Amino acid sequence: MSTIKDVAKHANVGAATVSRVLSGKGYVKAETRDRITDAIHELNYTPNEMARNLFYRKTGIVAVSIPRLSHPFFTEFVSEVEAELGKEGYQTMVCSTWSEQNHEQRYLDMLERQIVDGIIFGSHTLDVEQYRKVGRPIVALDRDLGPEIPCVAVDHEEGGRLAAEILLQAGCRKVLQFRGKGETFSPSEQRHDVFEKVIQKHGAVCYNYITKWNSLSYSYYAEITEHILEEYPDIDGVFAVDAIAMNVLRRAEEQNIRVPQDLKVVAYDGTNITQFASCGVTTICQPISQLASESVRLLMEMIRGEIPREKNVKLNVTVRKGRSTMIE
Amino acid sequence: MSTIKDVAKHANVGAATVSRVLSGKGYVKAETRDRITDAIHELNYTPNEMARNLFYRKTGIVAVSIPRLSHPFFTEFVSEVEAELGKEGYQTMVCSTWSEQNHEQRYLDMLERQIVDGIIFGSHTLDVEQYRKVGRPIVALDRDLGPEIPCVAVDHEEGGRLAAEILLQAGCRKVLQFRGKGETFSPSEQRHDVFEKVIQKHGAVCYNYITKWNSLSYSYYAEITEHILEEYPDIDGVFAVDAIAMNVLRRAEEQNIRVPQDLKVVAYDGTNITQFASCGVTTICQPISQLASESVRLLMEMIRGEIPREKNVKLNVTVRKGRSTMIE
Repeated sequence: MSTIKDVAKHANVGAATVSRVLSGKGYVKAETRDRITDAIHELNYTPNEMARNLFYRKTGIVAVSIPRLSHPFFTEFVSEVEAELGKEGYQTMVCSTWSEQNHEQRYLDMLERQIVDGIIFGSHTLDVEQYRKVGRPIVALDRDLGPEIPCVAVDHEEGGRLAAEILLQAGCRKVLQFRGKGETFSPSEQRHDVFEKVIQKHGAVCYNYITKWNSLSYSYYAEITEHILEEYPDIDGVFAVDAIAMNVLRRAEEQNIRVPQDLKVVAYDGTNITQFASCGVTTICQPISQLASESVRLLMEMIRGEIPREKNVKLNVTVRKGRSTMIE
Repeated sequence: MSTIKDVAKHANVGAATVSRVLSGKGYVKAETRDRITDAIHELNYTPNEMARNLFYRKTGIVAVSIPRLSHPFFTEFVSEVEAELGKEGYQTMVCSTWSEQNHEQRYLDMLERQIVDGIIFGSHTLDVEQYRKVGRPIVALDRDLGPEIPCVAVDHEEGGRLAAEILLQAGCRKVLQFRGKGETFSPSEQRHDVFEKVIQKHGAVCYNYITKWNSLSYSYYAEITEHILEEYPDIDGVFAVDAIAMNVLRRAEEQNIRVPQDLKVVAYDGTNITQFASCGVTTICQPISQLASESVRLLMEMIRGEIPREKNVKLNVTVRKGRSTMIE
């Protein structure tokens, strides 16, 4: 099998010139380019991808680290990231972190050892310093990892405020919100603080149901909602991520609790599963495809060796009104 | 940066012996092993993963090719595959094929050029011959790709038969099934043939709604079900994959069509989204985690250079009864 050096020798140029022709980057005289192309054909040279990547120190692979792929938000985020990376000629490696505590460190090691060209971190269990010291392309979804690492997120505070106002306007006086407690701080948690503050400011009661850390499975959501309406019999409003909100709607129907008359529900995220709510669930929607495209755009800038123009991309949430908060 | 050759020279052994120590495979005398370990430390040698993979002709990456990641069946399949591959020390590359017709050929090229060590094909749009001629580790989900390539699937014929019998026993006389039409034959389509045959054998009517090829998005499912109960006003039963069945349940509720009294619904796949059906939807369940673990097991055997003991793994479906077909 001929190598890039054989091609270079045959065409009487340096290996760097051959690589410029192969990559299409950098200037090569037309006459030289023709000679190299001829040599490639004559020697029947097919660049071994791994060898070529080794040569360029590029793998063409980007990792997306997320807590759990089957969580509807992350399913759609990864799906959109994969489509965006595909447009850039990159493959997507999916890296879940739910099953092992130290997975993220392993993914950082992969980045350091150049198995992947960059990582989009949608999970973050390590100290900021550990991401920072790798010094290679990283973009964070929903977490501030210091000044060097770009962060993409929605305006979660606005999301929490909107949810509270919708429930208050619908007449709620005792609401329950489900909130995850991360081991590290994420801007996404701000929505819960703002939600509680707005509810209380209007003299209403806000209960908090704290979900277990890193428990993002459908079975866990089904389990915690099974008796929730008996445990909190006096609530008239619920605020939760899509999958929990959908389960609450189901429980309400099973127990003949009328939505929206007796119970109002606001979902958060706006993933596809909300389309199954027969009542049409009012939802605070994250622009998931835009979160994905912005994350990929910033990561590509870093992989190309550019300094990203923005370090913090904050996108707007939108409200999709459904009958779960409105009486028609 | 020192290389494996430097280590070999320093320890006065061949590079192959160093690689045996690094990989932990093959016998190396204890004294030689110590000398190599010392050399590794003295030279501060860290194996560059890409170089090492090039050396071993292994990448530690397996691709999973699927029509669409956000389709609930494939979300859960990939999620389980990733967990299984993780146990084997492999990373998962996710490769959707919905957006481009020739994606699969590109993934086969990746396998040929050793960017990945193997592929699990859950999508298959190419001719059998194209998979075959690559001659590298491939496992097919739900498609017969010839005698060399193992196939993992459930007993779809049984699934179709069970669905038909449940609807007939519930009293249905005019049923509608949604069926995809693949460009290539998949065993998963057999369920529709069997379903229709069983329904007709009992003198009942079976309508077929043909879904567009490769259209597996939530938005498409919402679109085709929007007026389905007006288009087929006389049906008393529906058989469809989870996401379509869930949409039909929603439409029925919106139009005050009582389930199960006026309309009975059987879903196929048994993914997490069926938990949102307040009525509890009767479902033919595929053992998705077992499909994943069997696919990974067979692929690992091939990657290790073994000849898989079985070429066709056929798993059983199960029935989960819900109120969508039963009056309590």
